[in-house]
Amino acid sequence: MYASTLARGLLANKLKEYKVTANPLRPLDPGDQIEIGPFVIEPFRVGHSIPDAMGYAIHTPVGTVVHTGDFKFDQTPADGKAADFAILARLGAQGVLALVSDSTRAEAPGYTPSEQVVGQAFKSIISDAPGRVIVATFASNIARIQQVLDAAGEFRRKVAVVGRSMEQNVKIARDLGYLTFPTPLIAKEEIGRRSKEPLVIATTGAQGEPMAGLAKMANGEHRNVEIQNGDTVIVSASPIPGNEEAVGRTIDNLFKSGANVIYHSIAQVHVSGHASQEELKMMLALTKPRHFVPMHGEMRMQVAHGRLATQMGVSASNVFIIDNGTPIEFYADGSARRTTPVAHGAVFVDGASVGEISEIVLRDRRTLADDGIVVIFATVDAQSGKPVGRPVLVTRGFLNGDEDNKLVEATISIALKAIQHKSDRSAETGLIKAQLSEAVSRFLSRETRRRPLVVPVVVEV
Amino acid sequence: MYASTLARGLLANKLKEYKVTANPLRPLDPGDQIEIGPFVIEPFRVGHSIPDAMGYAIHTPVGTVVHTGDFKFDQTPADGKAADFAILARLGAQGVLALVSDSTRAEAPGYTPSEQVVGQAFKSIISDAPGRVIVATFASNIARIQQVLDAAGEFRRKVAVVGRSMEQNVKIARDLGYLTFPTPLIAKEEIGRRSKEPLVIATTGAQGEPMAGLAKMANGEHRNVEIQNGDTVIVSASPIPGNEEAVGRTIDNLFKSGANVIYHSIAQVHVSGHASQEELKMMLALTKPRHFVPMHGEMRMQVAHGRLATQMGVSASNVFIIDNGTPIEFYADGSARRTTPVAHGAVFVDGASVGEISEIVLRDRRTLADDGIVVIFATVDAQSGKPVGRPVLVTRGFLNGDEDNKLVEATISIALKAIQHKSDRSAETGLIKAQLSEAVSRFLSRETRRRPLVVPVVVEV
Repeated sequence: MYASTLARGLLANKLKEYKVTANPLRPLDPGDQIEIGPFVIEPFRVGHSIPDAMGYAIHTPVGTVVHTGDFKFDQTPADGKAADFAILARLGAQGVLALVSDSTRAEAPGYTPSEQVVGQAFKSIISDAPGRVIVATFASNIARIQQVLDAAGEFRRKVAVVGRSMEQNVKIARDLGYLTFPTPLIAKEEIGRRSKEPLVIATTGAQGEPMAGLAKMANGEHRNVEIQNGDTVIVSASPIPGNEEAVGRTIDNLFKSGANVIYHSIAQVHVSGHASQEELKMMLALTKPRHFVPMHGEMRMQVAHGRLATQMGVSASNVFIIDNGTPIEFYADGSARRTTPVAHGAVFVDGASVGEISEIVLRDRRTLADDGIVVIFATVDAQSGKPVGRPVLVTRGFLNGDEDNKLVEATISIALKAIQHKSDRSAETGLIKAQLSEAVSRFLSRETRRRPLVVPVVVEV
Repeated sequence: MYASTLARGLLANKLKEYKVTANPLRPLDPGDQIEIGPFVIEPFRVGHSIPDAMGYAIHTPVGTVVHTGDFKFDQTPADGKAADFAILARLGAQGVLALVSDSTRAEAPGYTPSEQVVGQAFKSIISDAPGRVIVATFASNIARIQQVLDAAGEFRRKVAVVGRSMEQNVKIARDLGYLTFPTPLIAKEEIGRRSKEPLVIATTGAQGEPMAGLAKMANGEHRNVEIQNGDTVIVSASPIPGNEEAVGRTIDNLFKSGANVIYHSIAQVHVSGHASQEELKMMLALTKPRHFVPMHGEMRMQVAHGRLATQMGVSASNVFIIDNGTPIEFYADGSARRTTPVAHGAVFVDGASVGEISEIVLRDRRTLADDGIVVIFATVDAQSGKPVGRPVLVTRGFLNGDEDNKLVEATISIALKAIQHKSDRSAETGLIKAQLSEAVSRFLSRETRRRPLVVPVVVEV
């Protein structure tokens, strides 16, 4: 595994956390170049929401493939290190076989604003804030955290960092020289005692994650930070699709706790780490690729990105809108074609099992979640097949305890009738079970208009 | 129930659908006035995404309360009938005790664009479309549907309507004179035969609802409409928070089916039916309320709306940011105060049960959905408490059938041991069950790192 310096620091920490003793990490920083098999890999600096983000030129025997990684072109980034246009221009002049490029914001016209815009917003908010300022963002967004530190420094406010992943990342980034602290860092345990001081607190949970710093503060459950009147909270992120409701709930709860909340809808306290259309066109203009593969985005974003490429001169037949797992083969004559998809997808980790849970188990869980379960136990005589005693009924997620006793009794009677009927013939357990299941399912569906999972169990004694 | 003419038509249809024979609907249209108990109700026309939307002035013995309903100020609405500024200005001059106003877009600066903008976008898209144009929107958005009809008419394209709720609403709106058809309406059953004609098809499912017209078309499962190359699909809606993923998936599937899809991110094919900040300020300026209650919006939108009100001169202590169910009492001296919240909330309809499902049942369903269920049945001798035979184990949503046989056998052994241990003492069923449950739960949690619902059942014979 090759990674740039900060990424290595963050990954080494994760490996330690998961008790991996081998160290597979090798250095690869902007300006380096490595040979792997028939490939020469040449990383180039791009802008993104973490320092030292890189794209890669992969020189192959049939031509050069440029992979942008996540990128934007920020002329005034937080760390002062802009994307390397010179390498991109050189690659374009030498000839690029294919460009594989970030499509996250291919639907957005214009340019993604510079990280500087956020820094200015932070300063203006902190300048006006009557009390503490709490800023929530991604734990990995070291650039954003630096801007929090800088803005706090400008108003001589002390800083605290709260949230396990952010604390770890800040420590690593500081040790590696990626973060500077204009004002002293306060231990989180001291926040309570210093509740009257105008601290600036950086924390996690900007996506409304229920176990992260911000949601705990919003719910009054945080060990170190209790929201108080006069607090200003900045939610420095846009909700990732699917998280809108959780983020909204967190903001609402912060308002209820007495904080003033500033978030993406009402101030520019977040900018994306991904390029908008004009930057994507700039990437296409610099690299002048023969083939184009829009990646990192939903199909509709890939389609939008593909249109930009054809506008920039890529032949429409050389644009590959592909699903995950679809390989593209490149040939010595400069042609390319998509080939048979390979196996890919998510692996479900469930407790101690990794990728072992079957579709049947998941389907059962869905049924259980919708309507619960009814287990009907019947004991029958092994010789005669006649029921021994009354069947026993167990339900979960279906009936409300006592009040449904009548329904339980009626169901048991239906079940008993189903077995008595069966016991006239041979006592084949499989048949008895099927009959039991059908009779109980039909009865319950008619009575309740619900369809619990009905499980018949027949024991011979 | 009082309602305007179109609303009465739509509601009468719903009552019929649910086989309600009583007719509780009474007419109340803009310009009418009614007396109910001590109140005089005076509706006034507002702009919204359905014709004849109204707000209400409620004249009470202690003053006038203005309730806006859902509203916007559209100077060029689809039906040509703009909001009634004159009534609002008169109310303001006479004195308004309290304004209760729509907060949906209180975070959005400026004005909500006119519905006209969408009509122009439709015309421009239909003009360029090489083949059929399919427009998805809300079934109740009669104004939007009229614009689809008008745009189709301008290019002499015939029209079809697909989707049960939209078909019903279009029929009702046409019968009541709320829709006009410049070009003929084609029956949906004819769409297949006319697949080469440049039809315009209005349909439902703009929120990605899996059972609605658009999602079915996107999945190739629609009875009447098969997406073909050259089709243009307009998704004329913004995703309601929580629906982003479903809408995105529908758009992606339409692209995969070969359609060109135009949606809110890439063209103005939707405008909100709710007022933005400048319109909200206009409402405040016209009515000049003493008290202000922002409604219809999350807490953060109510807060944003409350700030607009104080900017417009309402005293901050007269702004009531309240949860659902919180009453506000108004007094003859013009004062107001919030009082004790009343019972309110959602009623859960589950099969044939309405509001009867308990929190315990719901909690069980969540556990079942996460990790499934394990039922352990043990038969014991009523006298001695000794186990009769081996316990029986039933699991659903937990183990993968055969491959986990070893775990099942081990669990049964653990269970048997738990009962044998118990049988030394008295055979108290409750105790045996607790012991059984604890032993099995602990064993399974240790072995699988999962926590299924463990249900012990002990039968005495």
